[in-house]
Parts: sequence; C-alpha cells; structure tokens
Amino acid sequence: MATASELLSAIDDLGADRTRGGFSRHVLDRAEQELREWFTEQARLRGLQVTTDANANLWAWWGEPGPDAVVTGSHLDSVPGGGAFDGPLGVVSALAALDLLRARGFTPRRPLAVVVFAEEEGGRFGVPCLGSRLLTGTIDPDRARALRDPDGVSFAEAMRSAGMEPERAGRDDAALERIGRFVELHVEQGRGLIDLQRPVGVASSILSHGRWRFRITGQGNHAGATPMGDRRDPMLPSSRLVLAARDAARDVDGARATVGRLVPNPGGTNVVASSVDMWLDARSPADAATRGLVAELSGLAEKYAAEEGCRVEISEESYADTAHFDAGLREELATLLGDAPVLPTGAGHDAGILAAHTPAAMLFVRNPTGVSHAPQEHAEPEDCEAGVTALARTLEHLAGGRPPEHSATSLQRE
Amino acid sequence: MATASELLSAIDDLGADRTRGGFSRHVLDRAEQELREWFTEQARLRGLQVTTDANANLWAWWGEPGPDAVVTGSHLDSVPGGGAFDGPLGVVSALAALDLLRARGFTPRRPLAVVVFAEEEGGRFGVPCLGSRLLTGTIDPDRARALRDPDGVSFAEAMRSAGMEPERAGRDDAALERIGRFVELHVEQGRGLIDLQRPVGVASSILSHGRWRFRITGQGNHAGATPMGDRRDPMLPSSRLVLAARDAARDVDGARATVGRLVPNPGGTNVVASSVDMWLDARSPADAATRGLVAELSGLAEKYAAEEGCRVEISEESYADTAHFDAGLREELATLLGDAPVLPTGAGHDAGILAAHTPAAMLFVRNPTGVSHAPQEHAEPEDCEAGVTALARTLEHLAGGRPPEHSATSLQRE
Repeated sequence: MATASELLSAIDDLGADRTRGGFSRHVLDRAEQELREWFTEQARLRGLQVTTDANANLWAWWGEPGPDAVVTGSHLDSVPGGGAFDGPLGVVSALAALDLLRARGFTPRRPLAVVVFAEEEGGRFGVPCLGSRLLTGTIDPDRARALRDPDGVSFAEAMRSAGMEPERAGRDDAALERIGRFVELHVEQGRGLIDLQRPVGVASSILSHGRWRFRITGQGNHAGATPMGDRRDPMLPSSRLVLAARDAARDVDGARATVGRLVPNPGGTNVVASSVDMWLDARSPADAATRGLVAELSGLAEKYAAEEGCRVEISEESYADTAHFDAGLREELATLLGDAPVLPTGAGHDAGILAAHTPAAMLFVRNPTGVSHAPQEHAEPEDCEAGVTALARTLEHLAGGRPPEHSATSLQRE
Repeated sequence: MATASELLSAIDDLGADRTRGGFSRHVLDRAEQELREWFTEQARLRGLQVTTDANANLWAWWGEPGPDAVVTGSHLDSVPGGGAFDGPLGVVSALAALDLLRARGFTPRRPLAVVVFAEEEGGRFGVPCLGSRLLTGTIDPDRARALRDPDGVSFAEAMRSAGMEPERAGRDDAALERIGRFVELHVEQGRGLIDLQRPVGVASSILSHGRWRFRITGQGNHAGATPMGDRRDPMLPSSRLVLAARDAARDVDGARATVGRLVPNPGGTNVVASSVDMWLDARSPADAATRGLVAELSGLAEKYAAEEGCRVEISEESYADTAHFDAGLREELATLLGDAPVLPTGAGHDAGILAAHTPAAMLFVRNPTGVSHAPQEHAEPEDCEAGVTALARTLEHLAGGRPPEHSATSLQRE
C-alpha cells in the first residue's frame, strides 16, 4: 500500500528534462515506455490483469474485463518540460485508491479498471488525446498512423517499434461498451480550488479547443547582405500573428489563444528565415466562438503574409467541441464528496473525449501554484491524499461493492 | 586538374540537410570533419603540406611556410540549411587556381598557402569567424573555449574530440606574421554583379555587424487553463521586438536588423512559454549607427518585457567594426582584373577580421539568384571558372612568380 506521493517519487527520475526543466515524456519514447513498464509492474503487484489495447492505451483490470465497468486513470506522457503531476497524478491516485479499497476489504461488484491513455498531450505527434480519440473513433486511424513526430517518425512506426500493431488501431467498440462510467482524477490547472480553499473539486465542462498549424513561407536569405526592402521575411507576419492572437482572444469572453511553439526554418542567427511553422492553440466556452476566433486569425495571417510577400498554409491539427460532463454523475459525485465544488476547466482531457460516448466525470486536486505545463506545477501530499480518498470513495460508490461501514467485518486481500 | 564546379560536385553529399534543405555543416561536426578530410586529401594530391593550427584552422602550403606568404582560402562550414557555395567556393577555387598555375608552370617566389578557417558562420558556437578571431587575438581564448553549442558541448570539448589541443588556442603571432597578403574568393551574397553584368568583382568594405542574444523570461503555464489576463507570456515581447527590429533598421541608412533564430522554451503547442531566446543580427555602414540601433532595441526589449511582466537579459555574442579592405591592394587587383567592379558587402568574412592585421582583399563571384544562406544560392560554372582565373591571376601577381607569358616555356609539375 503506497500513497500517491510515494508512487510519484518512484518515477521522478524518468524523463527528467535537463535542458527545459521539468519532464519530457512523450508517447512511446524511452521515458514513456519506462513509465508503462513501471505501471505494468505496479498493477501486477496488485494482482491486476494488464493489457495494451489496439490504440496503445494500457488497461489494468481488477477482476475480469466486462460490461458496465468502472474505469479510472489518466496519462503518463507530458508536454515538453512539463510538471510532475499532469497525467501521472491520476494514474498513481488510481493505484493508491485501489490499495485503500483493498485495505478496507472492498470487493467491487462491477469490473474496475485503471487506464493509461496514450499521447494525451499531443507532445510528440501533435494531436492531443490521441489514444482516446482512436478508441472512440474521433480520429481517422489512417490519419493517426500517418502523423509524424519532429524527427519524421510516424505514429505507425513508433507503435511497431514498441511491438504494437498499428493496422489494428481505430474505434474499439468492445472496449468502449465495457466502460460504464469513467472518472479521471487530475491536478487542477488553474486557481479555482485555491480561491475556494478546497482540496478536491469536480469538473463541470471543458472549453472547446483545437490546434492549428500556420506555415508561413518567404525567401531565406543572408541577414547582412539583404537590404531591408528586398526581403520576404516570414518572421514578420508570424510575429504580428502572435500579437493578434492575444488581442483577438481578449475580445471573446472566456477565450484563450496561445502561440507557444514557433520554429523558424532554418533557424540561423545570420539568416533571414525561409519559413516559419507556428502553432495556434485556441479555446473558448462556445464552439462557434472558437471557430470564429480561428477564422479571424486565419484571415489576418493571409493579410500579414501577403503584406510581406509571403504565403501561408493553415492546417487544423485537432479540434474538440466543448465537453459538458454528465450532469447526473457530476452532481452525484459532488454530493458524495461532501458538496465538493464544481468547476469548469480550460484544459483538454481524455475524459472530455470519452464524455461524448459514456458518462464521464473528473476530480481535480488543488494546485497551490496555479501553474501547469511547467515545472512549478504542484500538489501538496495531503491534497494528493484527499484526492485518493475522494477517488476511492467514488469508485466504491460506482462499482457498487459493500459500503465501507460493513467492509471492516470482511477484510480480505486478493 | 579540376574545375571549381567539379570539386564542388565531389562534396555535394557531405552535410546535405534533408529537413531544412541545403547544407548544414558546422565546425567539427561529422560533415565538416569529412570536408576537412576531403580537403586534406585534395591538398596532399597536389603536393601541398597540410597542418592544423592551434585554432582549428587548416593550412595547405605550397612550398615551405615562411614570411610574406600569399594566402588564399575561405571556410567549409555553413549556416543551417545553407547553400553550396558560401565558403566552399573559395576553398575549391583556391585548389583550382593552384592547378591552373601549376599547369602553366608557374612557381611562386613567395610561399603560397590555402587556408580553411574554422566556424566562419558561427553556426555551432554562436561567434562567427571564430577561427580567424582566435588567430588574430580578436576573441579571448578562454571565452572561445567556453562557448557551447545547442547540445551543451563546449568548443574546447569539440576540439579535444577532434584530436586538437584547446589549451593552445589563442593569438598566433607566428602564423599571423607569415601572412603577407590574404585574398578570399567568395560567392557574392547580393545582386551587385548581376546589376553590373560582370562575373567577378573586388570587395571594398564590410558593414559593422554583431549578434546579440535576448533571453526574455516569463512564466510557463497551461495554454488552456490560464486566462489571458493572468499570463506573463514571453512570446509577446519577443514578437514586438522582431517587428521593432525591422522598423528601427529601416530608419538607419544602409542598416539591417534580423531575427532568424528564435526559440520558445519549452516549445509546446499547449504551453504558454516560460522563456524565449532570440538572436538579433544587426549591421550598418557605421559602428556608431550599429551600436545605436542595438541600444534602441535593447531599450525597447526592456520596455516590452516589463509591460508583460517579463524580464530580459541581453548579451553580446560577437561584434566586428566596419572593415575597409586595404585600398592599395583593392585598386591593384581591380586594375589587374580588367577594371573589375569594386563593391561593398553586408556579409561578414574572415578576410574582414584579417584586414585589421594584414593587407587583405576579396574577390566576389556573381550569384544569379542574389540569394545566400539558403539553398537557392548559386554560381554558374562559367562564372566559377572566371573566379578561378581571376584568383590564379591574383596569386600569380602577388606571389611574384614568372609572368604567364613566360611560364609556358618552363611548364613543370611538382
């Protein structure tokens, strides 16, 4: 029996990023594969049955896989230079919650599983929630197989290198139908629980969000020998677009627009860039508003590029409509957890993808810095334990075993 | 005996960059070391004596190294994704010019050498003309040894890995005193010779130029969960600075300011950057104007950073005053080469560094695209041959052998 903090400590050397700080753990890279091995070992130590599905997601079953299962879990991959909690906290809390239930002698009436979704951050192949999108048929498997990482390796090749069969990837009705309820625990990525002074909350909704790549092409040239008037420098329209994205998002209620990834090619100090790849992350509470924001910025990109003699290609890499978590389940959990606060989030999650297919819910654990996707992301051990307790209570409630007040009389270990 | 174009063809598979296009050949990386080996072999085939000096520069001597030598050459490294001619054309033209002189039976009265300078582009360790700066004492060798490439490898470590002794690096008076005249042939990096319809020209001067790194630091965070008003996003001041650099350079006669290298950290699509490293390349005909431009942009960087709750650190990576090539030598060569046009350039060169220490000159070969530091950089084979002929004539003139009209009577090979 281990606490969430102890389990996190056990993996804090895997994927540490000496250059960026924090962790860089990307789907099927060495660090993420070591994390998968670690998870598999931990699950087997607990007597769980571990399988990898056709979409690179890992499942650990307590009891036989079957219908109406209660599923919890999250992901082990990170953004580049990310924090220690985003993803892993949900996975280790699931293991710790199972330990707690076992210690109480709880035996689930329904099948119970812990899932580790693949490429939740889209940090390697560009599409976030790739594993849950594939599972639910939200992305064409041909498109997913052809996605390439910055080194040119395709998702299909990465799967094959890891011993998986990419040709099997795609919507998995059998797996989907087994999920009766899905609950993801996650570190909060904002200040909601700080302000409310509560350790744990329940999610209400996720902003609609997507990613768009803008490739702006000009003419590479010599930074010293090319007069300012003779240039077609794609850095100029790119820079205007970064600023326009912020301005446009400010004008839409609750919207966010971010350019955190921008790559000039070839990237030499004494070289006028020949092209710039930049990614726009845009979100808002309403699908139409997000689409409108992106349309506005696409128009500006065309205008800015043309004004500098450049051209622009825009491609949508991913999109997810606003997700509203199952209202009944949400209220049930808020009540069960002592009137836990109900909060929206701007961050995408696998639970948001699953919510369109099965009743899904999320629990948030307070993050005292309010910072996420950065090394400063944090959760205090006592808040992690509050999260584990809340998750255990949730699983117990949903899996329909004996209530805790009776379980002490029939304590047993598997 | 080989033409310049034939020699260039022999190396066109070394350092080809499949991602960026063009060539990426950086000092002491695999491609540049293979080019060094190729050059050494070519020089030895011609009976030249090859040595590497204490500063990673390669020398190939025709005859015994000695005082009042005539030295020609250029470099073999490139910018990332650079063209095939910038650097290598000067090296292969030197070899081809020697072949031409040999075929005519010319024997130099003064020692003659071909030099390959290290890290002319500063593409790996950030300081351009590193080899010639070290040779002339223009950079502190301690600073040079400590320079690091993007992977964290120091110049000292790279030298040691290549079998060199970094502790010997630094001003080399013996080598400097041997150079009586230095002439560098280079592809033109502009449109001067296109407009004049001439294949070969002589350089008059090089703009003052330098490189400054701006590190702008904010707070990394989640792109979806962080409201626009709660951000300290370093991409915003960086983008303003890119635009300001262009505007400021337009206001100064003959000035150039470029940001072609910009790296957000950690560089995730769904991550507000925690910091941005950006490099400013600034140049102008007058030292004071270049310094003024950089001072103006440094002030703006502080202002823009402060306005977004960010901070900025600025460091000068390199600087070179305006270089005026030796007027006597320049006029002598222009006359010798049939009233060749005399042209300024905005591009830095090792010849510009040497010009402060020894009479130096440059020959330019027409570039029909006018583009440089990009795969479109070009020189037609007949223009390359015109360059070789001009260089041979120059070397013959400066090295004081028998004039060509007599040499046919005493043709000999070494």
